[in-house]
Amino acid sequence: MKALVYGPSSKVVMEERPSPEITASTDVIVRMTRTTICGTDLHILKGDLPSCEPGRILGHEGVGVVEAVGPAVTVFKPGDRVLISCVSSCGTCSYCRKLMYSHCTTGGWILGNRIDGTQAEFVRIPHGNTSLYRVPDGADEEALVLMSDILPTGLECGVLNGRVQPGSVVAIVGAGPIGLAALVTSQLYSPGEVIMIDLDDNRLEVAKGLGATAGINNADGKAMAAVMKLTGGRGVDTAIEAVGVPATFELCQTIIAPGGTIANIGVHGKSVTLHLERLWDRNITITTRLVDTVSIPMLLDILRARTIDPKGLITHRFKLDRAIDAYETFAHAADTRALEVIVEADHLT
Amino acid sequence: MKALVYGPSSKVVMEERPSPEITASTDVIVRMTRTTICGTDLHILKGDLPSCEPGRILGHEGVGVVEAVGPAVTVFKPGDRVLISCVSSCGTCSYCRKLMYSHCTTGGWILGNRIDGTQAEFVRIPHGNTSLYRVPDGADEEALVLMSDILPTGLECGVLNGRVQPGSVVAIVGAGPIGLAALVTSQLYSPGEVIMIDLDDNRLEVAKGLGATAGINNADGKAMAAVMKLTGGRGVDTAIEAVGVPATFELCQTIIAPGGTIANIGVHGKSVTLHLERLWDRNITITTRLVDTVSIPMLLDILRARTIDPKGLITHRFKLDRAIDAYETFAHAADTRALEVIVEADHLT
Amino acid sequence: MKALVYGPSSKVVMEERPSPEITASTDVIVRMTRTTICGTDLHILKGDLPSCEPGRILGHEGVGVVEAVGPAVTVFKPGDRVLISCVSSCGTCSYCRKLMYSHCTTGGWILGNRIDGTQAEFVRIPHGNTSLYRVPDGADEEALVLMSDILPTGLECGVLNGRVQPGSVVAIVGAGPIGLAALVTSQLYSPGEVIMIDLDDNRLEVAKGLGATAGINNADGKAMAAVMKLTGGRGVDTAIEAVGVPATFELCQTIIAPGGTIANIGVHGKSVTLHLERLWDRNITITTRLVDTVSIPMLLDILRARTIDPKGLITHRFKLDRAIDAYETFAHAADTRALEVIVEADHLT
Amino acid sequence: MKALVYGPSSKVVMEERPSPEITASTDVIVRMTRTTICGTDLHILKGDLPSCEPGRILGHEGVGVVEAVGPAVTVFKPGDRVLISCVSSCGTCSYCRKLMYSHCTTGGWILGNRIDGTQAEFVRIPHGNTSLYRVPDGADEEALVLMSDILPTGLECGVLNGRVQPGSVVAIVGAGPIGLAALVTSQLYSPGEVIMIDLDDNRLEVAKGLGATAGINNADGKAMAAVMKLTGGRGVDTAIEAVGVPATFELCQTIIAPGGTIANIGVHGKSVTLHLERLWDRNITITTRLVDTVSIPMLLDILRARTIDPKGLITHRFKLDRAIDAYETFAHAADTRALEVIVEADHLT
Repeated sequence: MKALVYGPSSKVVMEERPSPEITASTDVIVRMTRTTICGTDLHILKGDLPSCEPGRILGHEGVGVVEAVGPAVTVFKPGDRVLISCVSSCGTCSYCRKLMYSHCTTGGWILGNRIDGTQAEFVRIPHGNTSLYRVPDGADEEALVLMSDILPTGLECGVLNGRVQPGSVVAIVGAGPIGLAALVTSQLYSPGEVIMIDLDDNRLEVAKGLGATAGINNADGKAMAAVMKLTGGRGVDTAIEAVGVPATFELCQTIIAPGGTIANIGVHGKSVTLHLERLWDRNITITTRLVDTVSIPMLLDILRARTIDPKGLITHRFKLDRAIDAYETFAHAADTRALEVIVEADHLT
Repeated sequence: MKALVYGPSSKVVMEERPSPEITASTDVIVRMTRTTICGTDLHILKGDLPSCEPGRILGHEGVGVVEAVGPAVTVFKPGDRVLISCVSSCGTCSYCRKLMYSHCTTGGWILGNRIDGTQAEFVRIPHGNTSLYRVPDGADEEALVLMSDILPTGLECGVLNGRVQPGSVVAIVGAGPIGLAALVTSQLYSPGEVIMIDLDDNRLEVAKGLGATAGINNADGKAMAAVMKLTGGRGVDTAIEAVGVPATFELCQTIIAPGGTIANIGVHGKSVTLHLERLWDRNITITTRLVDTVSIPMLLDILRARTIDPKGLITHRFKLDRAIDAYETFAHAADTRALEVIVEADHLT
Repeated sequence: MKALVYGPSSKVVMEERPSPEITASTDVIVRMTRTTICGTDLHILKGDLPSCEPGRILGHEGVGVVEAVGPAVTVFKPGDRVLISCVSSCGTCSYCRKLMYSHCTTGGWILGNRIDGTQAEFVRIPHGNTSLYRVPDGADEEALVLMSDILPTGLECGVLNGRVQPGSVVAIVGAGPIGLAALVTSQLYSPGEVIMIDLDDNRLEVAKGLGATAGINNADGKAMAAVMKLTGGRGVDTAIEAVGVPATFELCQTIIAPGGTIANIGVHGKSVTLHLERLWDRNITITTRLVDTVSIPMLLDILRARTIDPKGLITHRFKLDRAIDAYETFAHAADTRALEVIVEADHLT
Repeated sequence: MKALVYGPSSKVVMEERPSPEITASTDVIVRMTRTTICGTDLHILKGDLPSCEPGRILGHEGVGVVEAVGPAVTVFKPGDRVLISCVSSCGTCSYCRKLMYSHCTTGGWILGNRIDGTQAEFVRIPHGNTSLYRVPDGADEEALVLMSDILPTGLECGVLNGRVQPGSVVAIVGAGPIGLAALVTSQLYSPGEVIMIDLDDNRLEVAKGLGATAGINNADGKAMAAVMKLTGGRGVDTAIEAVGVPATFELCQTIIAPGGTIANIGVHGKSVTLHLERLWDRNITITTRLVDTVSIPMLLDILRARTIDPKGLITHRFKLDRAIDAYETFAHAADTRALEVIVEADHLT
């Protein structure tokens, strides 16, 4: 089968690979229909994630059709259309029993990382009973692709951890796909204001189209002052960090109101400075989280009700045999204005 | 001053009364600008609330301007525009310290009930520091009138007690003003479906205009079957009772899904049958609540952000000197299609 | 094998039955070490539970050793010592994914009810991966038997649903095994007072030994007045109903303070009167629940820490071959003073 | 009157000062009966808190008798015995209405900081209605002194923010008075283990006497390894930082389990390093808080029920005229083994 592989010299390459087979009784083989490329995939190519070694088939998102199931798979059968969670969960370990699937002792984020992933014609999904979701009849499959990772991540790590409430004032630092996913899902809780902060005017415009009430370009380093002006000097109730570098996490610390929450989504490669000398008495909360995808059932309900429309995040579509172009497009987002890039099976019409 | 009074023979009458004066150090005298009529006012006229005796000036909602303050009032001064909470709270008793203002030991719902109310030119507000809210600059005063009681009631007793969540399935039994207020405020949490149940097709149409996803006329007594059909036999996550009679509370019991919540708003005059023989093992929650108006600050934030628009609930407007007509219009809602009826000070232009 | 069976004429009988076999891939066969008798078993014998038909092997509690596992069982292997949850959960349906195991679409409370139970030498446990718990090294097996049902029931349906908090005032109506289990587990949250109400002085004495701060014998029907006297006229924050008849549920309604919670545990055969005409404005919450046993992991941690000692609930012990006597003892608790009656495998020394 | 004053050369001095007078209508003058010395008082003397200037009467804790009240004080009258909250709250600002008294816009921690404090014969308490609590009949006044600050701080900033639950594993870093207060109040929620970490063997012994299940002396810098050994390599559910220096906050980061909470109590003078490169995907929560004393009503209930006995924290008692010795004793705790030092009015017998 065709597969996108983490190749030599930090490049993604298209290779012909054998199709995956059932290796454990709980495995499901899925024929991929649509997948997408995540910022994390670019991190892998740069060598930032030692857990993922060259030769790995990339990808941890997507929808498809069940091709085969192991003998312990009781929930799905061949022919079922399924949504793949980016996080595999056994459903039985102590973390899974607490709905903290991200830390499943034999799962978690392994797809396209420790085991071969979804950017191929077929993928093997371990713990299939509890790592796949049935596609509702009539669901828009492109919107579903966003439910594998990006929407649950924005919602769980950003909005829910950040305790966004009706009327509350939210700042989202970083208007890339994940920051925009936090923006879109924040609207489920009717915040009073959502202030988007980025360095790219195009992305700030997109954010306004998706519901941001204000956009701040921090190219001049004056975002803190701008937020304080917008909030009457009070700061924000929720600051969502969606970049993953020290400067943006420090910005969050300067704009958070007493009693507020800083919800980190960003993947950080370095430690940051926490200004406890200023924050120790300000009753703030800081959260980190690898997405658990525990919100997928809620998101499926929401998709059905069309309460939010996440498809505004999708900017490009490619067939699998042109997926190298899809990577190029996604990797040069400043020029291509790419946000979410859908990769479809070649046979889709 | 002119005042609407609970008169003899279950009638409301317009009387000339002396203007109220400061009697306790925490009192505030408010010159009323706008008020409204509540279903509870009609209950009073029917004699259903023994706590309210004939001769009482009616009304517990409205906005106005501070005319005078007692020596212990530190938050407001004459000339301030204020929103009046239907619930007076001392801010110091054990209930107020738990934000359960409805049970304030020297307050609670006393306006237009145990003491003279707001349907007059002036009103005396006890515990002014903690029973009034400053009107934000530029706020729409008609929308604010709905924040004295009806919107906090729909939100606190219905939506928050009912734990409405994004994607959840909600039924609201009763499409009168309070049920519609629950409908409007439910949208702050992006439910997947809101099913409205009533006997009046006009009100069901209004409900659809305000965002209900389905309307069921229960004139044929088949609402339960209709709800089950709409929900694939599962029932609803939240059932909000907004009528106050045994039949509607029993209907809620028949449509609630396992794990769901029945949130009672209705003012009940009779006991009801609780089918514990069916419900004991269904993991349901039933709540009752007299509104605490603890959500007014959130609602003020929401009003500013225009997240919801409650003004669709307002159908009629009258000057104070025509307030008897306002009562007539409100009391014959089936004919007049009245929902919220605003009563304005005569001098307003 | 020997088995206790729901026999003719509402009697329990000892029968020789074939040992159970694996019938589904997720099945586990457990050789029972210890089990116990539940009040529900007596209800079955009286014919109160139509879901359980004569001929059924009774029992839904106990500990044992894994004898055999189906091919889809990945968590346990023969020889493992296991605690059996009274509730079987598939771990994959929408209810299980919300930790509401009681309503598992292919599980729930089926043991000793819809399928053969634990009062035998062997039992077949469906959905073994997620319906059994590994016995910690060194754990007291008798205490563990109480974790199959009675302790999680007291904790989940009574204490957690009842929102018992440090310093709060709790009343428990019914001092049978389940009420006493609520008493014991309530102490995990350090209530200020726990008032026990029953008709049996012996049980009230036992309750005091287990930590109740007051005992009220309601033989004179004056429990309400006694509670009001103890609470300065305020009532209780939490009322736990642990009997299951209309009179006790109505008592809870008369003693609940504004803002309080009535947590129902009792198995009700009849509807009750809910006095909404008194309670609609008192901000109370009523909950029902079939135990989910989601608290078993917490209880295992607690048992290890010896934070509470539940073994005070055990009054009698019998070998399996004398289990008919165990039933007699349990059924005549007023005379025998039986609370929890342990039934041990014959081979235990 | 006699008063302990922040004097020159970082010394506390005893001075004769005029008794305080009512200056605002909400003021209460309290004749002090008992007070205590807080670690923060020592910080003030070292010049660490610029908000507190030399000449200030120190102290923010204690109990006493109302001597006089301003005209807006409705809750207390002369002769009432009262507990003083270390945090003054107006009860009307937006923070107070959210029960976040620590950030009251005209209050917060001002006593013995921005205004004169309680280590004197009399003190003026602003916002008396909502900053004092009535002493229950028969209450132990020494235990009450601990409720002004140290017990609410341990409970709110440590235990509640740290989400201590029955069976959970807790580490408290720092066994000084505030860490021990967290230890004592943690027991209200029945944790499975409480591991105390300090550099002083005596304090670790005291901790064991107060309920710690393990004590680790980190003089060798190997506390992390010791905690991991005690927890089977998993780490702790809750880490409470009760020192206020970078090393102890970093230790908390190394011992926290996935899904755990680091609750900061320490007063930090420097920024710390937050290892987001390790923690970004571990689903942890970090909280900071200046105590709100919102838990005082709960603590008064608990004291009455004797659920916990905080008096084990009291090691020394002095009359006010020997209060300089009290400071010496408290400041040299390593030698004197002082924890809480009570300072009594001279007239007490």
